Amino acid sequence: MDLSFRKKLDESIPRFNAKLINSLTGPKSTTLIATFDEDNPSQTNCAIFSSVVHLGADPALIGFIVRPDSVDRHTLTNIRKSGLYTMNTVSYSFINKAHQTSARYPENRSEFKEVGLKEEYLDGFRAPFVKEALLKWSMRWVRSIPIEENGTHFIIGRVENIYLDSSILGEDGHIWLDKIDPAVVIGLDEYCKASDSIRFSYAKPDQDLKEVSFKKWEL
Amino acid sequence: MDLSFRKKLDESIPRFNAKLINSLTGPKSTTLIATFDEDNPSQTNCAIFSSVVHLGADPALIGFIVRPDSVDRHTLTNIRKSGLYTMNTVSYSFINKAHQTSARYPENRSEFKEVGLKEEYLDGFRAPFVKEALLKWSMRWVRSIPIEENGTHFIIGRVENIYLDSSILGEDGHIWLDKIDPAVVIGLDEYCKASDSIRFSYAKPDQDLKEVSFKKWEL
Repeated sequence: MDLSFRKKLDESIPRFNAKLINSLTGPKSTTLIATFDEDNPSQTNCAIFSSVVHLGADPALIGFIVRPDSVDRHTLTNIRKSGLYTMNTVSYSFINKAHQTSARYPENRSEFKEVGLKEEYLDGFRAPFVKEALLKWSMRWVRSIPIEENGTHFIIGRVENIYLDSSILGEDGHIWLDKIDPAVVIGLDEYCKASDSIRFSYAKPDQDLKEVSFKKWEL
Repeated sequence: MDLSFRKKLDESIPRFNAKLINSLTGPKSTTLIATFDEDNPSQTNCAIFSSVVHLGADPALIGFIVRPDSVDRHTLTNIRKSGLYTMNTVSYSFINKAHQTSARYPENRSEFKEVGLKEEYLDGFRAPFVKEALLKWSMRWVRSIPIEENGTHFIIGRVENIYLDSSILGEDGHIWLDKIDPAVVIGLDEYCKASDSIRFSYAKPDQDLKEVSFKKWEL
């Protein structure tokens, strides 16, 4: 491939830049974050995010980025009030519904109903889960960090309960995701499957890597 | 699938939790971040990260998480001194070398040499790029945010120059990554290919989604 092509950002074409910079960071995980309005708990919200990031296991912390001027704003408002939310892994089988949650629905309409996803309540946790998701977990808000440079917020929360089929949880704690066919997203609107995987041994200096397993994923 | 299985975190098994929480966030992009030591510029460093996250396009900001007590520490030290680094997309064809960068090499050994990746210097930028990467860009440090809850840091930087083959850049700014076969990582050590993708129209309330394109990726 010819990499002599250099792309300088031209600030006069904001839509072009938005697509370019969004796809630059590669295939990302797709997660539906679901919340409810503390003042009217039956008013639920569900939105797709590609910015979910692992922060650490002890304590079990996960972060994500919200844009207050976008459809993310209801998610942010609800989390600020109740401190509770759920994260739900998007499978390829319902990517169309997951993508449709990015439409700008008014506050009094729930994406669950609008896009045809089912709410599910588990173990008395007050925020809804997405019934269709085969891996999901409850989150408790810890802290929000304003990113002054562009008005976004980095939301940090703590993992509470994890819901998954016991058959996909490895003895060492690794989750074998092939059975739930997780979607990955490139940029704002291109969804891919993940496929055939290789698992390596823990890397050490001056030792050859071992391939611990190779899995052919069913597509 | 039977989702009646609930996993409560047991803090007495930290290794299990590390694998569980790392794989919970799904398939993530894999990026090699390369730096140099300002006091000894030929001493380079290269490390794999799965926490690279898009923050915004105007200004073009990208963030990532570093763990100062891990192999990430040389990356952090170098960025603090020079303010310069590169991000390089990992293709499936060199995942073994990319994974090997996670070994704990001492400060005076460069992962480039140890794992067999080539350094490349472009347009006078002082941090090295990874020659094997088919999509890469230069970054200028903006700010680091300490995550007090677990001692990690969220590093924010600004995109400078982007290097890619002009054939993979769409007219609308979207990067068609299928030609560079990006790897995604699940947990700490399972690498997948991304495959067959579908691209949707911009979602609007009360409008059916259109499938703008469907691509069969060559595997």
